[in-house]
Amino acid sequence: MAEPPYVIRPIGWVESPLVDRASAPRQGDEGSPDAWLVFDGDMVEGIRDLEAGSEILVLTWLDRARRDLLVQRPRGDPDNPERGVFSTRSPDRPNPIGLHRVEIVSVDGTRVRVRNLEALDGTPLVDVKPLLGPIDER
Amino acid sequence: MAEPPYVIRPIGWVESPLVDRASAPRQGDEGSPDAWLVFDGDMVEGIRDLEAGSEILVLTWLDRARRDLLVQRPRGDPDNPERGVFSTRSPDRPNPIGLHRVEIVSVDGTRVRVRNLEALDGTPLVDVKPLLGPIDER
Repeated sequence: MAEPPYVIRPIGWVESPLVDRASAPRQGDEGSPDAWLVFDGDMVEGIRDLEAGSEILVLTWLDRARRDLLVQRPRGDPDNPERGVFSTRSPDRPNPIGLHRVEIVSVDGTRVRVRNLEALDGTPLVDVKPLLGPIDER
Repeated sequence: MAEPPYVIRPIGWVESPLVDRASAPRQGDEGSPDAWLVFDGDMVEGIRDLEAGSEILVLTWLDRARRDLLVQRPRGDPDNPERGVFSTRSPDRPNPIGLHRVEIVSVDGTRVRVRNLEALDGTPLVDVKPLLGPIDER
């Protein structure tokens, strides 16, 4: 089957004090500094209902990741046994989409300040989704 | 800034009795039939630790979605007020990545049977991630 090209068009970028993988926490709730989601101007209508205090899911394109690793040692620890990449949260994976649960601290136009984001400075933003609550509250 | 092309390479496909959006449930836990994740043969090492009974996150490329809608009425209900797309779970969004929490029913080689997947038949698979447990169990 001929596959069409599935191309991600970034909706913005991460601004963060984190600039390299060696100094970044393994997960967002393990000591990440506050960061900014900086949305492109043409996304302003899409973000109009983001509110300070709420939790959201942020999807990123982990542009400094490797795409050719199928087994890895979780958390980079040589004492951990190897696992298939789809049973790990490693950034190195065939399609390096990062999934981050963060809390919105404040919203300033197209700049959204968030807590608990471990993505590196300059990481492209792919999507933002609300958390799903219980079925009867959707 | 020149943007490199961020291209998704599908790791497999969804096999499901769901063939059109009109008949698909809005969310996976609202009445989805069992479905199969059918992985490409060259992904076999990556899926080797997927196990029946566990819950996983599946990321898909919603290839029948629109990418030009920034405000929408949640759940397609005309009585709902419009909301910015990044505050909805609509499949129609600038980068149509679907995020699905499913339970593995069984694993048969590169075919993984799952419960609670509302993606349509033929939807490309992008990624699979484990759920993150409490910090002290990672």
